[in-house]
Amino acid sequence: METKETEKLQTPEIPEEVAAEVPERTLTAPGDTEEQERGLDIDAALALVEEKRYATLRQMLREAEPADIAELFDELPKQQYAVVFRILPKELAAEVFVELDSDLQQILIESFSDLELRNVLEELYMDDAADLVEEMPANVVKRILQNVTPEARKTVNELLKYPEDSAGSIMTTEFVRLKQDMSVDDAIALIRKVAIDKETIYTCYVTDRNSHLIGVVTVKDLLCAPHDAKIADIMEDHVISVNTLEDKEDVAATISKYDALALPVVDAENRLVGIVTVDDAIDVMQDEAEEDFAKMNAMLPTEKPYLRTSPFELYKSRIVWLLLLMVSATFTGMIIGSFEDALATQAVLTLFIPMLMDTGGNSGSQASVTVIRALSLGEIEFSDVMRVLWKEIRVAALCGGSLAVVAFGKIFLVDKWIMGKPITVPIAIVVCLTLMMTVIAAKFLGCTLPLLVSKLGFDPAVMASPFITTIVDAVSLIVFFALATTLLHL
Amino acid sequence: METKETEKLQTPEIPEEVAAEVPERTLTAPGDTEEQERGLDIDAALALVEEKRYATLRQMLREAEPADIAELFDELPKQQYAVVFRILPKELAAEVFVELDSDLQQILIESFSDLELRNVLEELYMDDAADLVEEMPANVVKRILQNVTPEARKTVNELLKYPEDSAGSIMTTEFVRLKQDMSVDDAIALIRKVAIDKETIYTCYVTDRNSHLIGVVTVKDLLCAPHDAKIADIMEDHVISVNTLEDKEDVAATISKYDALALPVVDAENRLVGIVTVDDAIDVMQDEAEEDFAKMNAMLPTEKPYLRTSPFELYKSRIVWLLLLMVSATFTGMIIGSFEDALATQAVLTLFIPMLMDTGGNSGSQASVTVIRALSLGEIEFSDVMRVLWKEIRVAALCGGSLAVVAFGKIFLVDKWIMGKPITVPIAIVVCLTLMMTVIAAKFLGCTLPLLVSKLGFDPAVMASPFITTIVDAVSLIVFFALATTLLHL
Repeated sequence: METKETEKLQTPEIPEEVAAEVPERTLTAPGDTEEQERGLDIDAALALVEEKRYATLRQMLREAEPADIAELFDELPKQQYAVVFRILPKELAAEVFVELDSDLQQILIESFSDLELRNVLEELYMDDAADLVEEMPANVVKRILQNVTPEARKTVNELLKYPEDSAGSIMTTEFVRLKQDMSVDDAIALIRKVAIDKETIYTCYVTDRNSHLIGVVTVKDLLCAPHDAKIADIMEDHVISVNTLEDKEDVAATISKYDALALPVVDAENRLVGIVTVDDAIDVMQDEAEEDFAKMNAMLPTEKPYLRTSPFELYKSRIVWLLLLMVSATFTGMIIGSFEDALATQAVLTLFIPMLMDTGGNSGSQASVTVIRALSLGEIEFSDVMRVLWKEIRVAALCGGSLAVVAFGKIFLVDKWIMGKPITVPIAIVVCLTLMMTVIAAKFLGCTLPLLVSKLGFDPAVMASPFITTIVDAVSLIVFFALATTLLHL
Repeated sequence: METKETEKLQTPEIPEEVAAEVPERTLTAPGDTEEQERGLDIDAALALVEEKRYATLRQMLREAEPADIAELFDELPKQQYAVVFRILPKELAAEVFVELDSDLQQILIESFSDLELRNVLEELYMDDAADLVEEMPANVVKRILQNVTPEARKTVNELLKYPEDSAGSIMTTEFVRLKQDMSVDDAIALIRKVAIDKETIYTCYVTDRNSHLIGVVTVKDLLCAPHDAKIADIMEDHVISVNTLEDKEDVAATISKYDALALPVVDAENRLVGIVTVDDAIDVMQDEAEEDFAKMNAMLPTEKPYLRTSPFELYKSRIVWLLLLMVSATFTGMIIGSFEDALATQAVLTLFIPMLMDTGGNSGSQASVTVIRALSLGEIEFSDVMRVLWKEIRVAALCGGSLAVVAFGKIFLVDKWIMGKPITVPIAIVVCLTLMMTVIAAKFLGCTLPLLVSKLGFDPAVMASPFITTIVDAVSLIVFFALATTLLHL
């Protein structure tokens, strides 16, 4: 397995005393006994921490992947963070540090000496350093900026200037830059020299003297070309690039669309300022999906994994929408309130309120979720509104019709004959007509409201199921009572 | 930008007559006038098709990315597919073909001569060929298998044997295989020789004489090592691999966790049989998120983009759950039915039914969606049930308490004073107590049911909002009427 993190692992500095202390074959490292290599055995590692067998633990950890060691930290008691972190070889330590959640990073930094802090900071890629500065409180930021080189401080400050969700905010400034008059051998020599410091070397960018992006060459191109070929002749000069200010979700979608490993980021003058790598694009896509899941289900997104989010944080992310939706349900109550007398004379109508409300809500959220996802995947935009509407109306007619027919049968079979309720044909007709009209209204609102909201520049995800449900509830009750008073002469 | 698809583009065969026909500077290719390079101008391309200016179109398309040309096909009228496809240079044509939806692929294959079919098939990677065979109807499959080499036929048949959602089903068999006694120069020479045929060359796998996976070397390692270093000395021998039968979603999660570009796939005897690349992992993750969105909102997943899904296909994906949920709402109706007499004496209670049902439903879906996503991201598993429960109970107490307090105020302010409903303190207490208990029950069910369902081996996503809502509706009504009859002596 190849990763941008692990190649530094190949020559960890193993102090002689540690290597000597533990005979090679007593290692409890995973994979020695299994056929197939798996990640770190976290329980075994925790046991070693418990027993303070740090030398064995060190042996075990230096063979492990940074992402797995980060998972170990999630399980560690707080007071052990610093001890276990100090066991790690210097470069591995920095790689693990990047993988940790920001609250863990903060605890570690606060326990670091200045020397330890510098060691970690030195190994960080610039985008990771900028992320760190962004997430730490002011006093920690001050210490961080005091302990980096003036050059790194400048780069970090540059990166922090980009708007929060822009391409600039997720790009790294470390990449391989080639000139078009270099030969293939020159280029390979340059890559050999700088490779250790660059986040991704497989895509190299060709710039002119003014840093304008003029081409791209992959290491595969270099390996397949004659040694003395000129970069200008083998480079691809149609380069897809993104602007620093472009939304990071669009950047991720572009990387996914073109199956790219990296995408160059240029400023307003087409000067190459950074690259976004595929692993960062994956993170953006995952965060985006999680945010959409949260918003579509009446929650504010939280950043931490579920088990590490406190009940109070969960409460905060959930209560706002619950309150808002509860209060807005007052309107539904008002509608029922104004038909109280009609309901009193035909109490059996109350029976159907939950069924009508639920079916309306479900129909509406089906349409809204489909449209919201299609919007966020870039499959549709506001100008498609008529195509979407025409499609949804036909779906609604099909769904509404089927539901009405089944409901009609169910009302007589279950409600009248089995439960013995006083149901007449006109009542059944009112219920089934309401059902059909509710489904059509729900699909109509479910597909148009998200499009409208996105057209107005808001996030359509907040228009998803809970909000649509509240509106559809009101609509279905109004239709229900209007039909009932008219057809049943209440 | 570097992609596995585009490197073949550098030497397209341009027939002289076409190149000569159109002067270089009259090209309407995108990016010539803009500072920043963007994708294909689809409207301009469509206009060229309309005007039958195929030579200009060919010039434009051969500079474009396969993914962009695939988007052009989405907009083309059916009868133009074959014409435009034949304009493309041979290798580009195959790359575009892979990007097309399967219904488009089928139309094209049916219009191909055997020679044209062979040309496309020759250029396909084995995993793409297997996907194609999987999606085509029997008569097309027969034609495909008749037109590939016996060797390719064998590989495709092997790939088709893996279960649908397994690592084996998404892996490619084309990768660079090294021996441990090779030198760095040998390895680079081998890569140069085979690179053109391999889907990903940046991660090379080292196997012993029995094809067992024993190490991994990246091209970066090779470039940074001395020319005469032995592969055995520079390879990473702790290789994270997956089994052919492992779930493809777990494979994607592993790639994401380790920021890997590719992951080796081994059989039960640890023999290396293929690799999964990061771009395929991204597709798996996206499909997975879309499936979860669909299932959590009472839909069966559809595979096609929204605008290309027919109303009848949408109907089929939606009606099953709508019917099921409508019929299950019968129980809610039955509960209301059995309290009809109580409601008749205190009609004002009906007012609060929508508010209680909606708040319960929203609270439940907040918990269920959070838990389902945490499950599918591997953050929690069934054994965490007590931790999850304890967390959700506290969140529920906080949410329920806040909602009850606000509801109490709202009932007097809005319902009693503004709307003039006959509300007494006992009625308000019944409503607020019900609200609190409903929220707690909703959060309890919302977090436990998905865990239980996943423990039983089913997909927890189907336990999401709509299903939870139906159950919580029933619970909230039972609590409401039980409290009302007891406290209000109905």
